[in-house]
Amino acid sequence: MNEFYQNDIISIKDYNKEQIEKIFVATDKIMQLNPSDRREICKGKTLGYLFYEPSTRTRLSFDAAMASIGGNSLGIADVLSSSAQKGESLADTVRIMSIYSDILILRHTLDGSSRFAAEISDKPVINAGSGTEEHPTQAIQDLFTIKKEKKKIDGLKIGIIGDLKYGRTVYSLLYGLGNYDVDVRLISPESLRIRHDSIYEIKKRLDFTESTNLEEHIDDLDVLYVTRIQKERFPDEEEYLKVKGSYVVGLDLLKQMKDDSIILHPLPRIDEISPDVDKTKNAKYFEQAEYGKHTRAALLSMILNENGF
Amino acid sequence: MNEFYQNDIISIKDYNKEQIEKIFVATDKIMQLNPSDRREICKGKTLGYLFYEPSTRTRLSFDAAMASIGGNSLGIADVLSSSAQKGESLADTVRIMSIYSDILILRHTLDGSSRFAAEISDKPVINAGSGTEEHPTQAIQDLFTIKKEKKKIDGLKIGIIGDLKYGRTVYSLLYGLGNYDVDVRLISPESLRIRHDSIYEIKKRLDFTESTNLEEHIDDLDVLYVTRIQKERFPDEEEYLKVKGSYVVGLDLLKQMKDDSIILHPLPRIDEISPDVDKTKNAKYFEQAEYGKHTRAALLSMILNENGF
Amino acid sequence: MNEFYQNDIISIKDYNKEQIEKIFVATDKIMQLNPSDRREICKGKTLGYLFYEPSTRTRLSFDAAMASIGGNSLGIADVLSSSAQKGESLADTVRIMSIYSDILILRHTLDGSSRFAAEISDKPVINAGSGTEEHPTQAIQDLFTIKKEKKKIDGLKIGIIGDLKYGRTVYSLLYGLGNYDVDVRLISPESLRIRHDSIYEIKKRLDFTESTNLEEHIDDLDVLYVTRIQKERFPDEEEYLKVKGSYVVGLDLLKQMKDDSIILHPLPRIDEISPDVDKTKNAKYFEQAEYGKHTRAALLSMILNENGF
Repeated sequence: MNEFYQNDIISIKDYNKEQIEKIFVATDKIMQLNPSDRREICKGKTLGYLFYEPSTRTRLSFDAAMASIGGNSLGIADVLSSSAQKGESLADTVRIMSIYSDILILRHTLDGSSRFAAEISDKPVINAGSGTEEHPTQAIQDLFTIKKEKKKIDGLKIGIIGDLKYGRTVYSLLYGLGNYDVDVRLISPESLRIRHDSIYEIKKRLDFTESTNLEEHIDDLDVLYVTRIQKERFPDEEEYLKVKGSYVVGLDLLKQMKDDSIILHPLPRIDEISPDVDKTKNAKYFEQAEYGKHTRAALLSMILNENGF
Repeated sequence: MNEFYQNDIISIKDYNKEQIEKIFVATDKIMQLNPSDRREICKGKTLGYLFYEPSTRTRLSFDAAMASIGGNSLGIADVLSSSAQKGESLADTVRIMSIYSDILILRHTLDGSSRFAAEISDKPVINAGSGTEEHPTQAIQDLFTIKKEKKKIDGLKIGIIGDLKYGRTVYSLLYGLGNYDVDVRLISPESLRIRHDSIYEIKKRLDFTESTNLEEHIDDLDVLYVTRIQKERFPDEEEYLKVKGSYVVGLDLLKQMKDDSIILHPLPRIDEISPDVDKTKNAKYFEQAEYGKHTRAALLSMILNENGF
Repeated sequence: MNEFYQNDIISIKDYNKEQIEKIFVATDKIMQLNPSDRREICKGKTLGYLFYEPSTRTRLSFDAAMASIGGNSLGIADVLSSSAQKGESLADTVRIMSIYSDILILRHTLDGSSRFAAEISDKPVINAGSGTEEHPTQAIQDLFTIKKEKKKIDGLKIGIIGDLKYGRTVYSLLYGLGNYDVDVRLISPESLRIRHDSIYEIKKRLDFTESTNLEEHIDDLDVLYVTRIQKERFPDEEEYLKVKGSYVVGLDLLKQMKDDSIILHPLPRIDEISPDVDKTKNAKYFEQAEYGKHTRAALLSMILNENGF
């Protein structure tokens, strides 16, 4: 029996390096299957999704992953605006959805929502983003992309740039990287630095430096992970425009980077990365999106099949 | 040929006891199939849904039922807010949807809408709730739950509590119970009593008493069917709060009930049943939701397969 | 290898008569398959849709077509109101969706959007309506309906009536008819005549006359193609009401038509065709909707299968 069978995926913190590497192996295996063999893995299984915070991207990634292994998806793409759900508790909605499906995908604004759902549901639950810190399948997708494109994770110099305060993908990635021996540089405007209340927890797991200046790290990085800076985060537009300019990744910046460095982004991107970067060999954010489909397919396959696949 | 083949399900009044019991037998049979055999029953068949009144719950129940027997679903979850449909007649929308699917599921605010749709459609139509009285698949689900959990329906004492005026599930259930020899107690605030214009029709089929006081029936009931009291129904909030309190089912009330009594609810629940009741052996509302998936799967299977399944 | 394999469908102008007739042959073939053989054609393939302009009808037609050949559909039914997509470029959205699917269906307000998407996407793109002129699969559906119901297209007298200015289906149909030897009469209120900037392009391909008076053509037509006149197009309601009345097709008008003439409409219809026409042998607009499902299924099948099907 594989250890993921019928188990929940709640927090990236719950996984050690060995387990993460097992997911990588499964993903490699699933990517090598031909489509019709792949569709046998979860044939006829049903994924049920509940999104209390709409996220078209993550939902479609799970939907496409499930379709690729022969299953189907149903659920509620925007629970809060769904009139029929008005006033129903999360517990009841989770119970009902677990009747309709073999595995539950939950996105919710609150920390702890997925763990709560997992206690209630008699079907396994995957956290598709919760609260301020957790998006475990995004972290796995990101780690897999680094491993795949750089052939290793240990020993890499990884810059993470943009909005480090509000982006939950950053936190999940950092906790995931905590399993590896990496040198992390957090680069952001002063006002968007990583949150104080998380900094100690991250420090326990990982060595990192903080900086506001991308230029001082740029020639040293193996991986540059870019996130979006949202205008709404700034009280003053003036302030935003000043900051924005200095964090746009363009061809000029790319020239300063190592030849074999890679650029990642969880997407959607607005203008943090200039489109002329897309066709360079360093741009790996669309590969990252594709790996997201495969890592999710691998997770679903292991959770739903006792003996793996 | 089974008598449901290619026939519509419009009103619970169209079915006698023998027919309802046939649906029960089919449901039992479908529940015993293993998933892969079950998925052969309606393999490749398409369910088309049209919801003129959104109902996430009922739609997902049909969707999950259809997926469990190998079919797929498509349609419009909220016809009236669907820009493309603006101004198109129900007749035209039904005609088009019947081109796209093998069976049509319709929810509509108007009485008679499903019968009208069935005349127009050359595919069978299932009424998924219409007007003030009809929700036949909910009634079948409710009757099946009682039969399954109490091993019989005849001879039972059944209390129905809450908003008896506006809840269409109550009317459908009463018409369904009309096929059995049951003792029904309708319990509601004065202002939410069963509608005058329906009372004579129900009386022809069923013996019942009316009361505003749950306490006087509580120790006598085999089944307590709870429905939601909606705040919006009361012109005066004061009035609502007074009523609300006296119809909440909690552990204290449960203690007064027979040991083997069961509590049902069509869901979603707000606070008519206190969450600490959920884990008692009397709470059967989540089983009821699960049976809803199976009774719908059985109906779809019989309608779409000439020789049953 | 069939010439449609892995190719885009962007504009009806890209197809000559021979190619269009090949699609007709494929459609005939697909309509003769039994459902289970038909479902083998694109078994397990995924259609991804992106609708920047919502169109329930066209989306469901593709969804039903794909289901009928064994595939499944996923995507975004209303990209612009999808919160997660806010600010993402068409290019990025197309790239991501092409990762999630085997073929992309795009509807967009802008001319050229589909050609742009096709350049970016590494999966084939079908234009499901763009800008003011293009809706190639609707044109194919319309041409197929004429061929099927009149046994030929060459030599026919075809009237097109209603809003010829704003209806993109009219332009696509005209460009499609340009491959045939037909006599086209364009009939509309003065203010809704075909656009000046398109008139020369259409004239190069097709002989047509323009008129405001349906009566003078009615007894001569083999095909009457009716489109909706939208109230919003008129600055003055008075003006609208005057026009509206004279373009309603009813039984009285039908009496003046040739016995074997046919009436088409892209649907949805509001009141351009009176419902009592529906049951006459001349009304073919519901058949047209059904053919739409089959022509789309044929196109998807040819694009996704190297050796046809």
